[in-house]
Amino acid sequence: MIPRYTPSEFAILWSDETRFGIWLDIELAACEAMESEGLVPIGTAKTIRNLNLVLDPQRIHEIEKTTRHDVIAFLTHVEQLAGAPARYLHRGMTSSDVLDTGFAILLTRATDALLLRLESLLEVLKRRSKEHSHTVLMGRSHGIHAEPVTFGVVLAGHYCELKRGLARLMVSREEIRTGKLAGAVGTYAHLSPAIERKALESLGLKAETVPTQVVARDRHAALFGAMALIAAGIERLATNVRHWQRTEVSEAEELFSTGQKGSSAMPHKRNPILSENLCGLSRIVRAAVTPALENIVLWHERDISHSSVERMIAPDVTTTLAFMLDRATQLIEGLVVYPEQMNRNVQRSAGLCFSESVLLALVDRGIARQQAYVMVQRNAMKAIEGHGSLLENLLSDEQVVERIGREPLIRCFDLEHSLRHVDEILARAFE
Amino acid sequence: MIPRYTPSEFAILWSDETRFGIWLDIELAACEAMESEGLVPIGTAKTIRNLNLVLDPQRIHEIEKTTRHDVIAFLTHVEQLAGAPARYLHRGMTSSDVLDTGFAILLTRATDALLLRLESLLEVLKRRSKEHSHTVLMGRSHGIHAEPVTFGVVLAGHYCELKRGLARLMVSREEIRTGKLAGAVGTYAHLSPAIERKALESLGLKAETVPTQVVARDRHAALFGAMALIAAGIERLATNVRHWQRTEVSEAEELFSTGQKGSSAMPHKRNPILSENLCGLSRIVRAAVTPALENIVLWHERDISHSSVERMIAPDVTTTLAFMLDRATQLIEGLVVYPEQMNRNVQRSAGLCFSESVLLALVDRGIARQQAYVMVQRNAMKAIEGHGSLLENLLSDEQVVERIGREPLIRCFDLEHSLRHVDEILARAFE
Amino acid sequence: MIPRYTPSEFAILWSDETRFGIWLDIELAACEAMESEGLVPIGTAKTIRNLNLVLDPQRIHEIEKTTRHDVIAFLTHVEQLAGAPARYLHRGMTSSDVLDTGFAILLTRATDALLLRLESLLEVLKRRSKEHSHTVLMGRSHGIHAEPVTFGVVLAGHYCELKRGLARLMVSREEIRTGKLAGAVGTYAHLSPAIERKALESLGLKAETVPTQVVARDRHAALFGAMALIAAGIERLATNVRHWQRTEVSEAEELFSTGQKGSSAMPHKRNPILSENLCGLSRIVRAAVTPALENIVLWHERDISHSSVERMIAPDVTTTLAFMLDRATQLIEGLVVYPEQMNRNVQRSAGLCFSESVLLALVDRGIARQQAYVMVQRNAMKAIEGHGSLLENLLSDEQVVERIGREPLIRCFDLEHSLRHVDEILARAFE
Amino acid sequence: MIPRYTPSEFAILWSDETRFGIWLDIELAACEAMESEGLVPIGTAKTIRNLNLVLDPQRIHEIEKTTRHDVIAFLTHVEQLAGAPARYLHRGMTSSDVLDTGFAILLTRATDALLLRLESLLEVLKRRSKEHSHTVLMGRSHGIHAEPVTFGVVLAGHYCELKRGLARLMVSREEIRTGKLAGAVGTYAHLSPAIERKALESLGLKAETVPTQVVARDRHAALFGAMALIAAGIERLATNVRHWQRTEVSEAEELFSTGQKGSSAMPHKRNPILSENLCGLSRIVRAAVTPALENIVLWHERDISHSSVERMIAPDVTTTLAFMLDRATQLIEGLVVYPEQMNRNVQRSAGLCFSESVLLALVDRGIARQQAYVMVQRNAMKAIEGHGSLLENLLSDEQVVERIGREPLIRCFDLEHSLRHVDEILARAFE
Repeated sequence: MIPRYTPSEFAILWSDETRFGIWLDIELAACEAMESEGLVPIGTAKTIRNLNLVLDPQRIHEIEKTTRHDVIAFLTHVEQLAGAPARYLHRGMTSSDVLDTGFAILLTRATDALLLRLESLLEVLKRRSKEHSHTVLMGRSHGIHAEPVTFGVVLAGHYCELKRGLARLMVSREEIRTGKLAGAVGTYAHLSPAIERKALESLGLKAETVPTQVVARDRHAALFGAMALIAAGIERLATNVRHWQRTEVSEAEELFSTGQKGSSAMPHKRNPILSENLCGLSRIVRAAVTPALENIVLWHERDISHSSVERMIAPDVTTTLAFMLDRATQLIEGLVVYPEQMNRNVQRSAGLCFSESVLLALVDRGIARQQAYVMVQRNAMKAIEGHGSLLENLLSDEQVVERIGREPLIRCFDLEHSLRHVDEILARAFE
Repeated sequence: MIPRYTPSEFAILWSDETRFGIWLDIELAACEAMESEGLVPIGTAKTIRNLNLVLDPQRIHEIEKTTRHDVIAFLTHVEQLAGAPARYLHRGMTSSDVLDTGFAILLTRATDALLLRLESLLEVLKRRSKEHSHTVLMGRSHGIHAEPVTFGVVLAGHYCELKRGLARLMVSREEIRTGKLAGAVGTYAHLSPAIERKALESLGLKAETVPTQVVARDRHAALFGAMALIAAGIERLATNVRHWQRTEVSEAEELFSTGQKGSSAMPHKRNPILSENLCGLSRIVRAAVTPALENIVLWHERDISHSSVERMIAPDVTTTLAFMLDRATQLIEGLVVYPEQMNRNVQRSAGLCFSESVLLALVDRGIARQQAYVMVQRNAMKAIEGHGSLLENLLSDEQVVERIGREPLIRCFDLEHSLRHVDEILARAFE
Repeated sequence: MIPRYTPSEFAILWSDETRFGIWLDIELAACEAMESEGLVPIGTAKTIRNLNLVLDPQRIHEIEKTTRHDVIAFLTHVEQLAGAPARYLHRGMTSSDVLDTGFAILLTRATDALLLRLESLLEVLKRRSKEHSHTVLMGRSHGIHAEPVTFGVVLAGHYCELKRGLARLMVSREEIRTGKLAGAVGTYAHLSPAIERKALESLGLKAETVPTQVVARDRHAALFGAMALIAAGIERLATNVRHWQRTEVSEAEELFSTGQKGSSAMPHKRNPILSENLCGLSRIVRAAVTPALENIVLWHERDISHSSVERMIAPDVTTTLAFMLDRATQLIEGLVVYPEQMNRNVQRSAGLCFSESVLLALVDRGIARQQAYVMVQRNAMKAIEGHGSLLENLLSDEQVVERIGREPLIRCFDLEHSLRHVDEILARAFE
Repeated sequence: MIPRYTPSEFAILWSDETRFGIWLDIELAACEAMESEGLVPIGTAKTIRNLNLVLDPQRIHEIEKTTRHDVIAFLTHVEQLAGAPARYLHRGMTSSDVLDTGFAILLTRATDALLLRLESLLEVLKRRSKEHSHTVLMGRSHGIHAEPVTFGVVLAGHYCELKRGLARLMVSREEIRTGKLAGAVGTYAHLSPAIERKALESLGLKAETVPTQVVARDRHAALFGAMALIAAGIERLATNVRHWQRTEVSEAEELFSTGQKGSSAMPHKRNPILSENLCGLSRIVRAAVTPALENIVLWHERDISHSSVERMIAPDVTTTLAFMLDRATQLIEGLVVYPEQMNRNVQRSAGLCFSESVLLALVDRGIARQQAYVMVQRNAMKAIEGHGSLLENLLSDEQVVERIGREPLIRCFDLEHSLRHVDEILARAFE
């Protein structure tokens, strides 16, 4: 979480104020549930709630210097502010009851904020895909011209990939929406499953099925994995923008704002810096997956090795991904598309992108596939080396003309035919 | 995939024979679908099928030395064996149609074989959990005695974690069950969505929503992530076994077979080598997640950088996880449990594990929480340093006895009470 | 970089103030070098230097909102402050000349601060190793009692590992001490190698051998790798402390300060939280290695994907490692060692740790190794299962006594003899 | 290690035959050293050596099925073959003495084989760099035309990066050349440092400074890190080849052999598949770094979690890197370079690559830098949008012409001047 890459919503979400506020909510929700089971005097939570406590993170940090324990510091501060009734708070609970339940709330909120952003990105991708549904673009495999596609289909592919990412994130949200109020080692020695159920429900959470001292960390690792998959999907999109913007390709370009400068040395530069930035940030999100997986392996009922990792990666990764989603939305929203240049690139292939049509025409006329391949390849290689277009070369290859006939050979070079299924593909993407 | 860690089922699954056989199935399924659309003469697939071709992987590898392309080598071999009708195979298709559809079939089969193994492990965990549902075990946080749990609850926790792993793997199975017969850049230029649908259905697969030249690699990365989560769950279980078997703890032990030798130097050794091995193998499975995520970012309609990665990690990771599941099942099945030693360890805590009960009793009698904490802590620290048990120390602490009373104080040290919710927890795990 | 884990020295090092200050130093050093080559009027740098500019990071950030380019924003700010002479700054340079040279200075300083800390840790490890050079400790393989070692030897092993880490960090320091003032694509089109040499020398740096637009990123990845190796060495040390402190082992313990609280629920707890924290932080440092390696693969003369990654991992990782080194030093400094408990644990092995001596005695008397193994193992297994000590069992095994004789058999159980090489090992470590 | 990516030298190196052969060498070297210290009868090693034992890996694997311990199985096999004298082998040693010393020999040999290959690659890079020392190529930052470089300089940059990789690998070789013959927990209880020194020296190794049961794993992790750095260097080179070969760029191309086929569907395709393959394989090598770092953290004197990891990554990674080095050498050796196309691409930039010269000319004539920037940028943007060349636009921009003058303005567009330092750069690279 460095300011440069932190949407303000996430700065607030991961602040001390928010965290301590959530902790108090949890203590009060637990207290109320205990009241109804007779463990704590009726009205305790209400009394404290009515005090409208204003917690002071700074004061809590000072107390922690002595206790070396953040939840105890928090509780001490609350006792100092709320007086006598506060002694009933945290009854039978352990710090992880507060920490992990609070973490579940924070991560659920972060996930919700991510889901909203992802929906915006999907919306923009869909819109621009439809706008360019039939804008012809040279398809490339290995970076080499292959056969034509449309720009709309390409964006639709990114749309579908990120939509799968959304589905996975929603599954992870359901997994992470899991708190725990089961005491020291998860046995409810001084609490009960009923109290936990009641309190967590009021907080919008479910209970861990079999808690240890903590909520199991496979849930968190799954969430970090789901986020990395979305980041990689954005990285693929951004990588394609970088390719489209290459000087020699020039098919699409990031919006270059007035006053923007591309280089401190070279005034002529307009660089795909948003996209490159997204590629870098994806590495950051991806890098959190391994420590999150390592965090799963806690000793016995828990150790605290996961804590420092989570203090760093949870804010960093959710925030970075939020920033990426905002930036990717802005990138696609503003992307300047050059259909004429796309068309020019299609033309410059000298018809090579129709080589397969000719191959199939030969096969249909009874030539063995591998033999037909050789017949087309020799004419293609000539074209690649700058001698004529593929069609010209084929038309002067007697063996070929004899088999296919001039007119049918010319009909092999038909863009319309190649792209006749585009609408069906798009319908499949956006249905 | 080294023989030491390869179940024979996986050696067969990832063999050349299996892969080329699947490729032929795909070509024939596609051919049949094309027949019904009139692209290929009716009966072509049947004719070739009736030849019962015996493919020779060695021969294919030799052809590849010239073509430098494995699918073309395969097709050439099939043409050599099947003669004229074979020229209709692969019509309008690109290599990735065969490769990715075949890969989908292999990974789906691998996943099914993993799911079966995982179910066995779950079965054994459940059985042993029930067997030891009330076997008291010292609960530990930070490796330090905390409060008591039962061995059955601990195993139930592992059960639930791995069951979540099973659910995730089933989701990934559905995602990976995705083939593609859409031609060079995914536009069906010489095919149609209907042909693809028909052929894939007969192979038990769905079609990629918006294909490029390949099936999108986020599906594969999600699968590798799901496998790593299961591996980490096994690693946590294995780590706990290693702890239980430590000489000073001695609460459970891997089965030591007759003739087995623990050390070449020290004849007295019985080591938790299965568990240690599982911890190492988990690192291997986890290490595949990052390259699988990197594989997502293909250029344009595809590049082939993912291929070498998948040739290595797909067999390695699925096989290693299968081996881990087999070994973990055997480990838990044979685990020798020492309830008396567990009990001895509970006893040696000098009653410290009941410190919270006393804390709460003081709070219930009106002492502020942090003050009560100090009162219990001073008696606990004495016990830790070897002076008396916690109960003895508390009984001679006038301030405490005055507040709680002798009898209620003694009642704080009640194991039964601590563990009264165990059955409810287990019911939740296994319902 | 979260405040909790940030030594103040590193907060300053990675501040905007420090960075912009260094950038100005670089511009002035370059300017001076250009003056001596006649590219810029003599005295320009001196004039600006005499202005003692106070840069305002806030102002620079505001300018960047328009330029979207941080170095241009910085230069604009400097021009606004310094007026006319400032137009000669940055002549023929590109942003990366400033950024990468500045990054080299920051990383070199960070490395120096890490080296100092690592030397302190080594010093403490050496001191405590010597203090306990002959404190007998049970050696363990697989967590199982093996043969005795001394606590001093164990610490010496950690000392040597971390000393290798220091050597590697010094090599990386030399690699990272590399700047670049070669202009846009590294060709010195408007500069010269001589200017670069002169300017970098005055900044304590060397020049990149063959620059592109940037300093090559393998240098940075090597540095992150060297840091991860040190972090892993600390993690191994911390893991051992966690083992020693386990309730059943109790051989050493983290210093527990007055007022410290181990658990919010259980007043009796004293947990190895420093060590667990170190294990978690090591995951963070390790996680940076992969993105640092990915950063190497820049397109052509450079792309900017590495930048966002470095903005995050460079401060995070150097700072976290600094914190780890401080904490590890404090951990070992304060470690409470219990030699009596170590001795008690050695005793409880029922003499099993001498099984190899007996094995060798049998071999020396002409028994085949594998047969001797079986003879010792049968007596060891009895002892493990609680029946007698190994020596007692062997003394009543006629086959054994017959071969070795009672007295020589008893002499096999000699701790002094086992540890006779300890001083030589320590001498090797600390020479 | 899959056959497709395994040079035969590495198949042999990592075979059972080689490993068991090395183990026997170690046992005999240790035996000889013990003879000279009187621990074993003089002549034992010689007697066994004279038997010229032919070890049978299959037989060893069968014995292991019972012992579940590979070194004991090996020793049993040797005893069966060599009879009585073999009982003196392995005296006072532990399995890790053999395993880790053997591993050190294997990794040292693997490293030597890698170093030779890397030298070949460096040789080819140097040769082709010199061949194209003055072949002008458009330099690109962000994939966008920047200023000109030469193809020779670009290759020289790769040369220097990989040469740093060679230096690091040599350092790691020295670290990994470390064996250990110190018995069960590294105390030489039944051996001596002198014996170890003598035996290891005869095997070309040094002794671990402070051994535990094993050689410390930071040494191995450092080696895997060094290999990943080389792989990333190759990946950067291969990525550039992929860019050069893009249809629109076409500046260089992988050698396309006779009979080779680029696509099963499209006969016209010539794809940079070697380079793409290298990029994928780099992910594999990089993925081993994290488990290698995790392996460092062994418990106490050792656990065996590292073993399964190393059985897989050591052969896989060394072999894959060897394959990469061979392939990269072949790639650069055969690379078809198109200087005319490089020149055409330089020309198509409409002189934009000289924008910095004009900027500096304006500054030299007293215009403030940021103002000069705006003056050049407005003319550059016109050229980018297809209106005139940069020079044409500048010549009709009165404000510019007035300041610089027509002739000096034209002189700003001088390729020779831009590249005047090329020879000095190359001299620096190859000195």
